[in-house]
Amino acid sequence: MFITFEGTDGSGKTSVIKAMVRELEEKGRNGCVLTREPGGNRISEAIRNVILDERFTEMDERTEALLYAAARRQHIVETINPALSAGKLVLCDRFVDSSIVYQGAGRSVGTDEIAEMNRFATDGLTPDLTIFLDIDPELGLERIRKNRQDEVNRLDHEKMSFYQTVHDAYLKLAAGDSRRIVTVDASRPLEEVILEVKGILKKHAPEFFA
Amino acid sequence: MFITFEGTDGSGKTSVIKAMVRELEEKGRNGCVLTREPGGNRISEAIRNVILDERFTEMDERTEALLYAAARRQHIVETINPALSAGKLVLCDRFVDSSIVYQGAGRSVGTDEIAEMNRFATDGLTPDLTIFLDIDPELGLERIRKNRQDEVNRLDHEKMSFYQTVHDAYLKLAAGDSRRIVTVDASRPLEEVILEVKGILKKHAPEFFA
Repeated sequence: MFITFEGTDGSGKTSVIKAMVRELEEKGRNGCVLTREPGGNRISEAIRNVILDERFTEMDERTEALLYAAARRQHIVETINPALSAGKLVLCDRFVDSSIVYQGAGRSVGTDEIAEMNRFATDGLTPDLTIFLDIDPELGLERIRKNRQDEVNRLDHEKMSFYQTVHDAYLKLAAGDSRRIVTVDASRPLEEVILEVKGILKKHAPEFFA
Repeated sequence: MFITFEGTDGSGKTSVIKAMVRELEEKGRNGCVLTREPGGNRISEAIRNVILDERFTEMDERTEALLYAAARRQHIVETINPALSAGKLVLCDRFVDSSIVYQGAGRSVGTDEIAEMNRFATDGLTPDLTIFLDIDPELGLERIRKNRQDEVNRLDHEKMSFYQTVHDAYLKLAAGDSRRIVTVDASRPLEEVILEVKGILKKHAPEFFA
């Protein structure tokens, strides 16, 4: 079973995932793998180094999207597919949906184009379940302001409009694929959000809970 | 005008391209750009370094194909598109067709899949004309044996079956897109091949010849 977590900054995604892993480690029977791209393999890390090289300001958006997809492919082959084949529950912090909303919508490459190109990278692998932690980006920013003061500066007004675009694209994705994507209201207190997500996971993957 | 050259090893591709460039430099009016991937830009070179890193024996075929497409994208953005916008004649040694036949057919990723994924990388850029230098791979091997003795060993029997697969895929591509791809019998003496290609270029791009 392959479950992904999606959401804009400040949605509490990291805290929610950590709580799920704790729950699964306490009660899990068949083992649970938590992962996120690039996934710790050396090829994806090498690709990530090219993407993040600060000298490469001339990098085209499509070049970047192809590099992210290449790193994703290797992460799938080395980490996700082997864990799924071994019958494990794989929790992944961000997956294709993040590329669709951040690069497709946020950077205007086109959501359909990014989705289509990533089908080459995933070769048919789709999450069984995606938890979308839905929060208004302004509210998410407020949370980050409170919790991580050192990261406030990078979220200026220009970026807020970017995050609104990204958030709108998430809503559109969730509306178009409501069987796979479960939207959780992440504006509530973290404890409530964690309880709801726990309930959703237990319902969708009961075999992994004692 | 964007012209690409394709063919298996030993087809005389490099010699033919050199002859065309000489001809165009003598008679060309509007300037001609000869290029090949990765195209000399630092991002494509960095990507190529990841592809060619000998330690990365675990690299998945799709990862590799995505990396080639990423390097191609940056080459298009930095070299090919600017030259075409400036009204130049761009001659490119190998392009998407090479990925389709070598990775799609040769490495069994699937020719349609490689073609589709590369449409993301090219974003609509298709050669106006492609010269396919058609030679039986066995005969191509014979030529290489004669001309470059040091490179013979790498073309063993296993590789010959690979090159036959690649050659078959070239024939199929050419048959399916005969408007764009002009097949030239490259088994003849090099001088004859060069004369024929020269005639094709003059016919398709008369404005670049005095």
